[in-house]
Amino acid sequence: MASASTQGSELENLIRLLAKLPGLGPRSARRAVLYLIKRKESLMLPLAQALEAAAEHVAPCRVCGNLDTANPCQLCSDPRRDRALVCVVEDVSDLWALERAGAYRGLYHVLGGVLSALDGVGPEDLNIASLVERVRGGEIKEVILATNATVDGQTTAHYIMDRLAQTNVAVSQLAHGVPVGGELDYLDEGTLAAALKSRRPF
Amino acid sequence: MASASTQGSELENLIRLLAKLPGLGPRSARRAVLYLIKRKESLMLPLAQALEAAAEHVAPCRVCGNLDTANPCQLCSDPRRDRALVCVVEDVSDLWALERAGAYRGLYHVLGGVLSALDGVGPEDLNIASLVERVRGGEIKEVILATNATVDGQTTAHYIMDRLAQTNVAVSQLAHGVPVGGELDYLDEGTLAAALKSRRPF
Repeated sequence: MASASTQGSELENLIRLLAKLPGLGPRSARRAVLYLIKRKESLMLPLAQALEAAAEHVAPCRVCGNLDTANPCQLCSDPRRDRALVCVVEDVSDLWALERAGAYRGLYHVLGGVLSALDGVGPEDLNIASLVERVRGGEIKEVILATNATVDGQTTAHYIMDRLAQTNVAVSQLAHGVPVGGELDYLDEGTLAAALKSRRPF
Repeated sequence: MASASTQGSELENLIRLLAKLPGLGPRSARRAVLYLIKRKESLMLPLAQALEAAAEHVAPCRVCGNLDTANPCQLCSDPRRDRALVCVVEDVSDLWALERAGAYRGLYHVLGGVLSALDGVGPEDLNIASLVERVRGGEIKEVILATNATVDGQTTAHYIMDRLAQTNVAVSQLAHGVPVGGELDYLDEGTLAAALKSRRPF
């Protein structure tokens, strides 16, 4: 009430919307708005335009689910990519993480989430049917399941494994083990057990 | 390089701009962008419009420095406000904090920062001359110095005190003491000393 009359409806509205972003609350949204107001030309208006442009032009790729302005996306239409290899990830953020690592040159398939009985997410809510269809197309030789190492992520990986069993594609998953730079003392028992089980000759 | 080709220039650009906001880094900006893309109509486009509207219409009040779409701002032109009382704050965020407390019904004066030899901020960089001018106008009976209880905040308060000494306006400052709900064990010596010195009859 007091704040509505002080900040004016324009600022009030902007703070309310910004506070909805993950990682921002009302306090940090207010701080961000004051920061923006002082940088109208250099940040505030460019940000408004970038939001509008992305909202208008960015859409999920109809083949893999990656977000891009091109459709199929740049990854799917890149001739240098290995079209026999598909890496299945939960979300676009995982695809970005793998791309930042720069160690993978195949294609992707974004599920758009994981199976979750608690949240009522079933197979029909994820891009699983389209994955099976892609594999049936015949070009793909190996599917790498790169869902998160969480209970839901692993459940989803097992479900996809079952669905792909009828096809004769190879299915693999990411290795478990000690993170590079990780200290044994800080790792959980599950990771240590997995690292021991998958030990390799030195 | 890898990320530029993956995310497309529109997303890349949006992430870069969002990551400049205080409280957001590249990682949280990426998360925010994915969150926005899933809410194009309900959040992303309204946010773009709110940014544009605020950038266009919101400006510092020419009297007190508060941010508003009206100029003079709604506080300065509110007839219910006590025009004999002016509260001097460092920044608009401090004005908002005082308004949220709802305990003050006078006017404000926003300095736009504090004196700081380290950062090269001198009196001419702050709205001090305009404060002295407002006081010379004669309507103001009391100036409350509400700069932060930091070294720079208190230096600024002293400087303003000196500048106002020639006028015959009353100058006061916020009370120091134990915060409401605060535990003595967690307070610094300075606060405890101030609270003891300013003790009141029970």
